[in-house]
Amino acid sequence: DRQGRRTKRAREGRGPCSLHEKYWTVSELGLGYESDETVVFRYCSGKCVARRRNYDIILEHLHRGGQLDESSTCRERKGRGKKNKARYSPCCRPTRYEKDISFLGNNNIFYTIPDVSAKECGCV
Amino acid sequence: DRQGRRTKRAREGRGPCSLHEKYWTVSELGLGYESDETVVFRYCSGKCVARRRNYDIILEHLHRGGQLDESSTCRERKGRGKKNKARYSPCCRPTRYEKDISFLGNNNIFYTIPDVSAKECGCV
Repeated sequence: DRQGRRTKRAREGRGPCSLHEKYWTVSELGLGYESDETVVFRYCSGKCVARRRNYDIILEHLHRGGQLDESSTCRERKGRGKKNKARYSPCCRPTRYEKDISFLGNNNIFYTIPDVSAKECGCV
Repeated sequence: DRQGRRTKRAREGRGPCSLHEKYWTVSELGLGYESDETVVFRYCSGKCVARRRNYDIILEHLHRGGQLDESSTCRERKGRGKKNKARYSPCCRPTRYEKDISFLGNNNIFYTIPDVSAKECGCV
């Protein structure tokens, strides 16, 4: 059914490139800080195929024809076995980051760190 | 052997993200234009691992721990089997494109098309 498929697609993050968020404790972020404070982590996820330019079309064409080293190109998704490098689809990536986050560590030291969360995403 | 491996790595385009160029006829670019004129095609290729931010480290950590859907993250290179979406390494992509290119088609029509060649690359 259509609704079911739409839900599944959303769950799998296959919509267009956009900002997503989840809540974690600072410790869970894996940066090496121990703190039970909860923070929001926003990240970029989704498709960028609609934003391809002539550049991407050419790169894909040359690659498919074997005119570039297999190792020097890669497609955004079907990466299997590709050594990649030149991407022929734009990337869904942060174009701006949130301001620094601050938190109190479990050791009672106050920390401030930059570039944790995305603020804006784009196909770059 | 170490030297052999290093040479192989270089040949496979595993240096840092940078601009590369090759010459092609317009026809060979695969955009659908027939012209024997030769143009330069510049593209971006190379590594961006050195440019990772806290954002990328967190995304990788949550992914490895299985705390994000398998389908919602991907690593830049070892894409095998990943459905990807949220990239946890910056992409080597054009940050600026060359001005339009113009050429005479084999049908004697003059064409001008944008965004063919990269002018500048960056880890975005």
